Amino acid sequence: MGCKRTTLGTLYGVGIGPGDPELITLKAVRILKEVDKVFAASSSSNEYSIAKEIVDPHLAQDTPVERLPFPMTRDKAVLVEAWRANGERVVEFLREGKDVAFITLGDPLTYSTFCHLMKQVKALEPNVEIITIPGITSYHAAAARLNAPIAQGERGFYVVSGVNGGGEIRGALERSDTVFVLKAYRKFDSIRKALDDLGLTKRAVVIKRLGLDGEGIIKDISTLDEDEKMPYLSLVVIQNLE
Amino acid sequence: MGCKRTTLGTLYGVGIGPGDPELITLKAVRILKEVDKVFAASSSSNEYSIAKEIVDPHLAQDTPVERLPFPMTRDKAVLVEAWRANGERVVEFLREGKDVAFITLGDPLTYSTFCHLMKQVKALEPNVEIITIPGITSYHAAAARLNAPIAQGERGFYVVSGVNGGGEIRGALERSDTVFVLKAYRKFDSIRKALDDLGLTKRAVVIKRLGLDGEGIIKDISTLDEDEKMPYLSLVVIQNLE
Repeated sequence: MGCKRTTLGTLYGVGIGPGDPELITLKAVRILKEVDKVFAASSSSNEYSIAKEIVDPHLAQDTPVERLPFPMTRDKAVLVEAWRANGERVVEFLREGKDVAFITLGDPLTYSTFCHLMKQVKALEPNVEIITIPGITSYHAAAARLNAPIAQGERGFYVVSGVNGGGEIRGALERSDTVFVLKAYRKFDSIRKALDDLGLTKRAVVIKRLGLDGEGIIKDISTLDEDEKMPYLSLVVIQNLE
Repeated sequence: MGCKRTTLGTLYGVGIGPGDPELITLKAVRILKEVDKVFAASSSSNEYSIAKEIVDPHLAQDTPVERLPFPMTRDKAVLVEAWRANGERVVEFLREGKDVAFITLGDPLTYSTFCHLMKQVKALEPNVEIITIPGITSYHAAAARLNAPIAQGERGFYVVSGVNGGGEIRGALERSDTVFVLKAYRKFDSIRKALDDLGLTKRAVVIKRLGLDGEGIIKDISTLDEDEKMPYLSLVVIQNLE
């Protein structure tokens, strides 16, 4: 090309942990200090402000933080357009040679919008360097909070999404001693019913807003009201041990 | 009881991450600074020295680090006796009112001897406070190294132990897009054969000694020698996406 180009900046996908500001890694802290620009998903205002609170103490004073809209919809066309626009916005900065961090609660590769962003950025700038910094996930933090073994010896464990309800639980338990059901809020009724049907209510613990204001740990699901609703950021830990 | 008792110390299970010294959390660093005594498993000398190197810079100058023998055997009697002796050794310090950290590479509740230690300590001192600090696991670090999405949308993922070979892989893949096979060394042959049989060699990546000296990433298993051996701390990432 005739025009002179700056070296592309690096895109960092930075896991900032499950909510407790101390559960961020030294590497994430270092990267946050070094980058020129920070992006965060703004799908939920609540989630954005938790993320902002975690990273703020680590940023250089003049590092701008920008919210990228990832709409919470199942309309594929709306989603694809948002992902594309977000990719372009990030690439603008990378093309100026700026290093950019995209922060994610939990881990950047586990149910995170970073996967979409990475894809878009790669499509626009195939040679961009992308570095992912893993983060502590909500389910690891949940197990820690309960001192509940996740896996031992020859057995495995399973992480399922609860967005479609409890349908996945039975199959998952056939193959492992521990099952985590993430995103256990919108379809909590269905998850609860599945646990009932499987006789597992006594082996399941529901955790809401772990490590945050309004944290709740429900060790006996049967004590919940019939139509109890769970907040965003709820998960279920099922243990089939002993 | 007639005798005066000191308040029991707290037992911390501290995850120190997968090997990269920067992938430890701020909370782990704080706890390591505060405790009176640090224990580490000495099942493998190699693993012990990696762990020691990670925590040393964070300990107060006079904090003693002691190795606890967790023999690598399948002889249950030998194991049970070792776990009991280790529990007693740790409880000695807790009874003196000392706060104790047991450090674990990765996460303390994911294939870690901490689960055994916790059980023994609870049996000896049911009222002891046990606090687990989650750590970044090898498989999260592996996915990050590869920029490989672990889970998206409605799908789950599965972590299996490779100690018995590749038998678990087929069933796990029926239910998820991503499967991690941890401890993929002793029975690597069997794991490799399972991947071959399932036509997955092109979707599997083997990672050895991630983030450590001698790190290797094998993106095409068919390029390995027939009888290639994998070192301790090897794992396989299988992705069935797209």
